[in-house]
Amino acid sequence: MTQIGMLLYPGLTQLDLTAPYEVLHRVRGAEIHLLWKNLEPVRDEATMAIVPTRRLADCPDLDVVFIPGGHGQAAAAADPEVLDFVRRQGEQAAWVTSVCTGSLLLGAAGLLEGYEATTHWAYTDLLAGFGATHKPGRVVVDRNRVTAGGVTAGIDFGLTLVASLAGEHVAQGLQLGLEYDPAPPFEGGHPDRADPDLVARVRRGLRPDLA
Amino acid sequence: MTQIGMLLYPGLTQLDLTAPYEVLHRVRGAEIHLLWKNLEPVRDEATMAIVPTRRLADCPDLDVVFIPGGHGQAAAAADPEVLDFVRRQGEQAAWVTSVCTGSLLLGAAGLLEGYEATTHWAYTDLLAGFGATHKPGRVVVDRNRVTAGGVTAGIDFGLTLVASLAGEHVAQGLQLGLEYDPAPPFEGGHPDRADPDLVARVRRGLRPDLA
Repeated sequence: MTQIGMLLYPGLTQLDLTAPYEVLHRVRGAEIHLLWKNLEPVRDEATMAIVPTRRLADCPDLDVVFIPGGHGQAAAAADPEVLDFVRRQGEQAAWVTSVCTGSLLLGAAGLLEGYEATTHWAYTDLLAGFGATHKPGRVVVDRNRVTAGGVTAGIDFGLTLVASLAGEHVAQGLQLGLEYDPAPPFEGGHPDRADPDLVARVRRGLRPDLA
Repeated sequence: MTQIGMLLYPGLTQLDLTAPYEVLHRVRGAEIHLLWKNLEPVRDEATMAIVPTRRLADCPDLDVVFIPGGHGQAAAAADPEVLDFVRRQGEQAAWVTSVCTGSLLLGAAGLLEGYEATTHWAYTDLLAGFGATHKPGRVVVDRNRVTAGGVTAGIDFGLTLVASLAGEHVAQGLQLGLEYDPAPPFEGGHPDRADPDLVARVRRGLRPDLA
């Protein structure tokens, strides 16, 4: 079995996790662990609580470590038990991965030092503080580090990772089964292609520390 | 508050729900209810369990009724308590909505009779049995019925619905904040654009009743 560990923490952006989970759990031979310090439901940024399937302390050695982003990321990254877990698993895993600001937790654990990586577009300036180099792109692969952009990049990330784990044919079948043929209702899902006033407004909402 | 009710049921495809939830919970004035018969965690098709926030019996009149799809859909649609709830809420809601095979549950509740609608591409033949007309498209709007294609169509659906509920400017801001600028790693996320052998294989996996 391919052991895939996906970290939960209070205040995660649940779609960062649930999008790649939907792809990964369909891979034959994959065993997914939803991980937290205890087995109490973990609440996201709003009202959804997800039940962990395994405690950090009981987690087997992982083939894939996955970290989602979210407003709770900084608190999780300041928790020694969480940080030790991510560092220890990340040092031995075949793949060390994240979506959105999950890469900042990988960085805090020292796992992005000397790597190219990405994160949500509003937070890319923070990667350098962890010794990482920001590389533009929705999914950035540098050796065994796979980091993705904000929230919805998790689908592209999941399919990219499955292609590495199980082959392109499997990933293509999952893409078709999940009907991933996106048709965004608007232009401007990335700041390079959005109205500058809208970019400024969204950035202010996300990064009060820069205001 | 805009009351948005999202149905959980055992064996749902969690991304059908979690993708639009991630968009909808960010709308100011929206109150989201994750609904089931009781408040015990509800397990998806694999290992993820989500905690309901409200019992069907305690649910206020909804402005938006939302039904996800999944392998458990047929069992949910055969449950009189669930069907009565969906029918009663659907008859009075401002918006009656679904992603993936959730539309088949709407159909079973009699809510698609005389409407154009869609569902996951492998199940579109079943819509006619509910008096609905299949209309191609990732998100199909007919009066106050908004139905979407398979699984990942939930993001396009969520943004489309937010544009109706709160205006295009709000939806555009959310699309940017969620970095929805998709870059599928492969062609062929829709059967019209996929290899026919792959389409046949995926269809066989999803619809053993046709084999």
